[in-house]
Amino acid sequence: MPPPVDAGSGGPLAIIAGGGSVPIAVAQAVTQRGRRVVMFPVRGWADPETVGAFAHYWIPLAQADVFRRHARAEGCRDVVFVGTALRPALRSIRFDWLTLRLLPRIVRAYRGGDDHLISGVARVFEDYGFRVVAPHEVAPEILMPAGVVGSRSPSDQDKVDISRALALLAATGPFDMGQGAVVAANNVLAVEAAEGTDAMLGRIAELRAGGRIAAPAGVGVLVKAPKPHQDRRFDLPAIGPRTVEEAARAGLAGIAVVAGSTIVAEPAKVAAAADKTKIFVVGIKPGQFAP
Amino acid sequence: MPPPVDAGSGGPLAIIAGGGSVPIAVAQAVTQRGRRVVMFPVRGWADPETVGAFAHYWIPLAQADVFRRHARAEGCRDVVFVGTALRPALRSIRFDWLTLRLLPRIVRAYRGGDDHLISGVARVFEDYGFRVVAPHEVAPEILMPAGVVGSRSPSDQDKVDISRALALLAATGPFDMGQGAVVAANNVLAVEAAEGTDAMLGRIAELRAGGRIAAPAGVGVLVKAPKPHQDRRFDLPAIGPRTVEEAARAGLAGIAVVAGSTIVAEPAKVAAAADKTKIFVVGIKPGQFAP
Repeated sequence: MPPPVDAGSGGPLAIIAGGGSVPIAVAQAVTQRGRRVVMFPVRGWADPETVGAFAHYWIPLAQADVFRRHARAEGCRDVVFVGTALRPALRSIRFDWLTLRLLPRIVRAYRGGDDHLISGVARVFEDYGFRVVAPHEVAPEILMPAGVVGSRSPSDQDKVDISRALALLAATGPFDMGQGAVVAANNVLAVEAAEGTDAMLGRIAELRAGGRIAAPAGVGVLVKAPKPHQDRRFDLPAIGPRTVEEAARAGLAGIAVVAGSTIVAEPAKVAAAADKTKIFVVGIKPGQFAP
Repeated sequence: MPPPVDAGSGGPLAIIAGGGSVPIAVAQAVTQRGRRVVMFPVRGWADPETVGAFAHYWIPLAQADVFRRHARAEGCRDVVFVGTALRPALRSIRFDWLTLRLLPRIVRAYRGGDDHLISGVARVFEDYGFRVVAPHEVAPEILMPAGVVGSRSPSDQDKVDISRALALLAATGPFDMGQGAVVAANNVLAVEAAEGTDAMLGRIAELRAGGRIAAPAGVGVLVKAPKPHQDRRFDLPAIGPRTVEEAARAGLAGIAVVAGSTIVAEPAKVAAAADKTKIFVVGIKPGQFAP
């Protein structure tokens, strides 16, 4: 059993689960540490096939009361938010009464960027007696280590591209937008905003198929970095096997993320996918590629 | 006839024409000023239907010698580059001998961003005795004026979004990437890089259709601004009726560009499209929206 971690009250852990494979990776890691988990998959975001192995209650978006009732009955005090979230259109949401009472604060949170939205929602949960903890506080093994995952390493040109992408992400950080960029042979090919990493990589694959990217296949990197001043309990950049596959399909040389500040879902599958598709996946130490 | 302009040697003007409606707008304006134009539409970029009204010679990409031969025979000394260019994949280009001899310089230019590529190509033409002039030097009427085109004006919220987008573009300027961004209710929805403005707007329309944009239709702006230190002879940001239609389809409130540093193709059609789709199109003075 892995060593115990400090975070948490010790009762069962509530996991409010968005999409992707990270929520399950967290649930498995926490379970292996001997702590019970109760999943709260968000309807429309979480994958129905993956939550079945754990105790779980589906919650519709903006139905805070459904969560509160079940989480209290299960004895959960600690809550983790993890997984990909689609920023919903306000008009598509059916609010319950609890959420409606909280609406003015949620609307204020909406006016800011995603960070504000997420922090605002966290405060709401804390007002109701829950304690919001970071996924990596309860399962540190999900954080990307420094160094390569898989067997390939970035070339000198890749390192130049990584450095340029990190500088770009540092420049866009204050604008509270996406956390990813693609740079190839020193050219910025794409910057992530509302579309998400997978859609950005899909765009690169399309542009490449249309002959609109000068760099040959096998040149270029996807770089993801946390925003400066980000509330690290939420929305850390994450990669998984699918990210590796999409990066390979976009013809990139590899993926670089910030070690210790990026969640890596299913590291063994990430390593296998990287080796199969012949791309590198590297965790870089903060400051390692400073220009 | 419009007042004469200083630029140019007085002989016929060679227009190396990329895609979109701007090259024709320039050709018409220059012709109205009483100067003969010879079009050199680039195969694969320029629209065959629009060049027919002028003397023209199609030129394949990277066939500099075809241009040189015809331009000299026509007595052209001044050259304008105008229109949208797709950054080609090097392997898709068939080089002629003249271009091949210039290849080391072109490859060097390729290593930088688009600005470097374009400036590198300009130097090549100048070495062969041509004089590269800006489209707005020979046809100043194609530049966006300050103030609105059409009848709508930006709201206070739109002005906040414009200011934020300008700040973002100032931050990304040193990275020599796209010249456009979309901001809605203070959220950065998209940043342009290799995909171009139309594709970026198409992405917003898709995200909106998928319910993934929180701001309601009619909120959000497209802002285009020239890069800092840009060689103003080339690749100034441009808008035309199509940009207006795409912005409307993306559910935006309007378009803001920098007055005097943006080319507006067919201003009457832009105004008509803006009024028909109920969006604003505004030319802002540099510094007007400084945060």
